[in-house]
Amino acid sequence: MASHKLCMIPGPIEFHEDVLQAMATPATSHVAPNFIPALGESIELLRQILFTSGQPFIIAGSGTLGWDMTASNLIEAGEDVLVCNSGYFGDRFGECLETYGAKVTHLRVPIGESPKLDDVAAALKTKKFKAITITHVDTSTGVLADIKGIADVVRRESPETLVVVDGVCSVGSEEIRMDAWGIDVVVTASQKALGAPPGLCVMGVSERAIGVFKNRNTPVPNYYANWNRWLPIMNAYEARKPSYFATPAVQNVFALNVSLKQIVAQGIEKRFAVHKEASAKAKKFIHDLGLKLVPTSLEHAANGMSAVYYPEGVAATDLLPKLAAHGIVAAGGLHVEIAPKYFRIGHMGISVTEPERGHLDATLNALKASLAECGYKGAL
Amino acid sequence: MASHKLCMIPGPIEFHEDVLQAMATPATSHVAPNFIPALGESIELLRQILFTSGQPFIIAGSGTLGWDMTASNLIEAGEDVLVCNSGYFGDRFGECLETYGAKVTHLRVPIGESPKLDDVAAALKTKKFKAITITHVDTSTGVLADIKGIADVVRRESPETLVVVDGVCSVGSEEIRMDAWGIDVVVTASQKALGAPPGLCVMGVSERAIGVFKNRNTPVPNYYANWNRWLPIMNAYEARKPSYFATPAVQNVFALNVSLKQIVAQGIEKRFAVHKEASAKAKKFIHDLGLKLVPTSLEHAANGMSAVYYPEGVAATDLLPKLAAHGIVAAGGLHVEIAPKYFRIGHMGISVTEPERGHLDATLNALKASLAECGYKGAL
Repeated sequence: MASHKLCMIPGPIEFHEDVLQAMATPATSHVAPNFIPALGESIELLRQILFTSGQPFIIAGSGTLGWDMTASNLIEAGEDVLVCNSGYFGDRFGECLETYGAKVTHLRVPIGESPKLDDVAAALKTKKFKAITITHVDTSTGVLADIKGIADVVRRESPETLVVVDGVCSVGSEEIRMDAWGIDVVVTASQKALGAPPGLCVMGVSERAIGVFKNRNTPVPNYYANWNRWLPIMNAYEARKPSYFATPAVQNVFALNVSLKQIVAQGIEKRFAVHKEASAKAKKFIHDLGLKLVPTSLEHAANGMSAVYYPEGVAATDLLPKLAAHGIVAAGGLHVEIAPKYFRIGHMGISVTEPERGHLDATLNALKASLAECGYKGAL
Repeated sequence: MASHKLCMIPGPIEFHEDVLQAMATPATSHVAPNFIPALGESIELLRQILFTSGQPFIIAGSGTLGWDMTASNLIEAGEDVLVCNSGYFGDRFGECLETYGAKVTHLRVPIGESPKLDDVAAALKTKKFKAITITHVDTSTGVLADIKGIADVVRRESPETLVVVDGVCSVGSEEIRMDAWGIDVVVTASQKALGAPPGLCVMGVSERAIGVFKNRNTPVPNYYANWNRWLPIMNAYEARKPSYFATPAVQNVFALNVSLKQIVAQGIEKRFAVHKEASAKAKKFIHDLGLKLVPTSLEHAANGMSAVYYPEGVAATDLLPKLAAHGIVAAGGLHVEIAPKYFRIGHMGISVTEPERGHLDATLNALKASLAECGYKGAL
């Protein structure tokens, strides 16, 4: 693909050739002897990647569907939910929760900040929350939340509160240890650091949360997202038995399976480390160019992406097309209050775990060259 | 793929090489200049394929999600819905409708029968139904419903009732003319006669139904399926503008786009005709073998699939593995009352529109050979 531009946005990320080849698997029945283990094994691999004994789900849909799954299976109408809101995705998750009758309290943090543990503790004292949600990496700002610290606070202040992590832009690139940290739900999707094309909603749910689900007082107010439908399906495939509720996205699951096997084979701990190294390299380069990150501190900046303010005199309409001309696709701003003022690059998956591909260097060099073409002198 | 077995089930069907190649498109942003027209054009092509001026939707998910979209956007709690129930999928659609508060009346027909127009007319006289649902092709029985006739009855008896067609196993293989016949909703999915891998929920919604949706009294009780979220997205992509609610299944949409272009280029009318011809050939072959179809008459047997009773002395555990050994994947029974007694084969998409591939002949010959291997003498 000579004309292919590197997709260096915070998802979809660049995909391995073997993953793409799996996407082109010829027609296969969703109950075929070669498909059942692909889904069954993917469920097992997700347990390893999320460090949980809980229940993974792999469902046709986008990551957004994971919000519906969380809201409609774990929350009952009238229950309170605390949303740690660091940007666009906190607003949206809150809307989703309200759709299913939750009473949502937003703990809003300023743009570029991450939720403070003391603020979380204080909020938890105000009422009894059924759940707290945290955007692990806010794709709109590149902010990384301290989910381990927040989960600790929850266990201390309100131990029954379910800890729900929106990990759409973090699973596979940021450290997550569901069981050890006391995380009850992780919502993610295939197309970010899990390294497969978009089209799959992926979740991990703790045994405790499954217990809460099973003890609901009211019916689940959603059909497609209903875990009563999906639990037997996930269990059947894991037991290598055919089962049917809704047709799985067969090719996407084959592709995810290839990527999950690569992730586990390469080592999950190593994966965390190389994402940190690559991010540090990217952020130093950005700093040396004289540019400013949206996150106010490197302490709470994501390792899988960087959100960067344009320097004085450079606009999205200038920089992004120039990057594209250099073969690099970057993303514009998404947080509504600052959208025209910043851009975002992703550095996840094979673009950092296989540095011999040169994706990150190509991106950073293209950034430097494009800024110069925009007339930016700065620290170039 | 020397080891590839022909997937001759009633979906997923065999996919064209160009469709599979599109599935392997390298990473592409969901707002990339080459992706936006693929989704935008697919929306336009669906209008042609469904013969409607209404609104198509293409959403990451399975066909089942289309039931949620119908139930949560068009029905409000407490409203009555008449479900023409010819098998498994009528039961399930009814459960989905009830999840969102609909009061469901089932008009059940015996196994192998299609809904009778007089029965529909009589049912419509009993109360005011917000909608009627019809499974166009019941994948569990191979029964084809007369949706044109039923829509006529609705227009006469209860003109405000929305006509909802579950076309998961019919769009692309059976004649549907939404506007001319007065069909308000068609629910389908990518992996049947639309000819692309599973993972996309596809719908067509009439302008009238969109109007009903816009005049709802209560909020839509679903987040991911909410047309208030998706209408602006579909409109934006059709206008070739980027927009974002949830990340589309980029590769699946590229693949669907290839298949929809093939369908329109080959001619939709011709497509209806070749599916009828292939089905007639398959059903004659089956009849000549001395086997009996689940549909009680050829008049209401689907053109894209055949559901066939095993002859005396032959069981699923005998026949299906033998067919597989001949390189043909067929499906077992699904209708709970007769599941072990019959099997199903699909004859849709490239397997019939490109007869030079020899899929149908290979399937029928394998059926004959496998029956002989099972010890069946019959009319062989």
